[in-house]
Amino acid sequence: MTPTETMANPRADRVRDVAKLATRAARNRRRRFLAEGPQAVREALRLDAERRAEGRDAVVAEVYASEACLDRYPEIAGPAAATGQLRLATDDVLAAMADTVNPQGVVAVCTMLDVALEDVLARRPRLLAVMCRVQDPGNAGTILRAADSAGADAVVLTAGSVDIYNPKAVRSTAGSLFHVPVVLGVEPEDLAAAARAAGLGILAADGDGPVDLDRLQDESAARRMGTAAAAGEYRLEAPTAWLFGNEAQGLSEGEKALADHRVAVPLYGAAESLNVGTAATVCLYASARSQRR
Amino acid sequence: MTPTETMANPRADRVRDVAKLATRAARNRRRRFLAEGPQAVREALRLDAERRAEGRDAVVAEVYASEACLDRYPEIAGPAAATGQLRLATDDVLAAMADTVNPQGVVAVCTMLDVALEDVLARRPRLLAVMCRVQDPGNAGTILRAADSAGADAVVLTAGSVDIYNPKAVRSTAGSLFHVPVVLGVEPEDLAAAARAAGLGILAADGDGPVDLDRLQDESAARRMGTAAAAGEYRLEAPTAWLFGNEAQGLSEGEKALADHRVAVPLYGAAESLNVGTAATVCLYASARSQRR
Repeated sequence: MTPTETMANPRADRVRDVAKLATRAARNRRRRFLAEGPQAVREALRLDAERRAEGRDAVVAEVYASEACLDRYPEIAGPAAATGQLRLATDDVLAAMADTVNPQGVVAVCTMLDVALEDVLARRPRLLAVMCRVQDPGNAGTILRAADSAGADAVVLTAGSVDIYNPKAVRSTAGSLFHVPVVLGVEPEDLAAAARAAGLGILAADGDGPVDLDRLQDESAARRMGTAAAAGEYRLEAPTAWLFGNEAQGLSEGEKALADHRVAVPLYGAAESLNVGTAATVCLYASARSQRR
Repeated sequence: MTPTETMANPRADRVRDVAKLATRAARNRRRRFLAEGPQAVREALRLDAERRAEGRDAVVAEVYASEACLDRYPEIAGPAAATGQLRLATDDVLAAMADTVNPQGVVAVCTMLDVALEDVLARRPRLLAVMCRVQDPGNAGTILRAADSAGADAVVLTAGSVDIYNPKAVRSTAGSLFHVPVVLGVEPEDLAAAARAAGLGILAADGDGPVDLDRLQDESAARRMGTAAAAGEYRLEAPTAWLFGNEAQGLSEGEKALADHRVAVPLYGAAESLNVGTAATVCLYASARSQRR
């Protein structure tokens, strides 16, 4: 461990500077955000090492950790020391820096990760998750994590969505923010036009939609097993961008109109609607299953 | 509207009594909990009317609402008046009663709804969602809502789980708490023995499990389409109780050992694991699809 001096003053300027990253204004001004806790910091460091190895820009600008944490997580201590930006800090200092009550001994100041839509589309993606004005940081983070789990190639947040670099959102991604490319601030119309030009079909997740997701899955399974010609309404195997709406209002009429089809996740019980995170999970996994088989 | 006097004092004894339902101790002592906001109260009143029509015990003990809310939601005003327990209240009084900052003009004191495991099993359920020591009220509520959406016959929370009557949990169910029977405080061993005796198979959702959920779904689809004998490891069409674990530790070794199979939701991307709500959604919808087709 190279750093010897431990930061111990929670009111030091540097501590305040890090803590300010809890506000969107400070994040945007400095193009930095905070990853808190061992899981997020480990994934940030993994991506950072990958990027550096490719001669690309660093992801991790500063790491602050307690000695106890570095002792406990060698997979953090090693890469953190390798960045040359590791500082030891007391738990009080870490608590003052972090949005979480208990950051479990480590936080990292990271550079923003979002990429341009064109760069994502140039890589011929097969599955995109698009959040249209999702407002709750926990929902946004959970959907990003579900998109990562389902193997989505990228996640898009349209203009007017919650800031994915919000500490609660970052936390909810459980490290997935460092796995999946994220595109921010796109207008839905521009997204739809560009995605379509890149060969993606566009599906709107809409509880009132006329197309049943189960039927699409059945048709896809039938094609796979060769039991039916089953042209069907839409081939779930095809490259697809899914649109998910605001948690209170769902997709707007304008957003729905951008889609090739409005697809409903079936409700088998008495629930009136699905939580947007639940709906996104079912839709993304349905596409992933069809595409990968 | 029969009630004429509007409750206007946020410090009145009755207001404090309602507000105390935010604590588990008060809820358990009085066997009451609070539903907040139009959606939850509407669903509570719907169940209440159903129960009364069947000559059973009431669900809604007291309703407090603003005049504006009753004007806006006739589907609340009518049934609430019919209970004979409706009181008008100012927004200040409602805010003092509720856990939410803004209960949107209405709260209802409800009687606890949980039922005995034997009663659930006597009705020959086909799909049960079992939360094993889930701790976060938002997760518990979201899983209950997802279980309702997937048409589960009941939801079980084992001993040591979060209180489903916690205001945040109630809110996260979005009314589903009034749709799906809930069983509380069961020991996992007792649940497994009783469920098995009632003809249910038991599956543990376990990211490290040897059985792949997609394979089970494929085998089920193949049987449905008659393309394969496909005995397979487990018939997803069969009546099933799914076990979902604590959000931090997952299922314990003891809990896993109770299951017939440990089933993993596939991770197609770089995510290390699924959020328990996401995993529960995928598993319950996989069962629902197989059982209903």
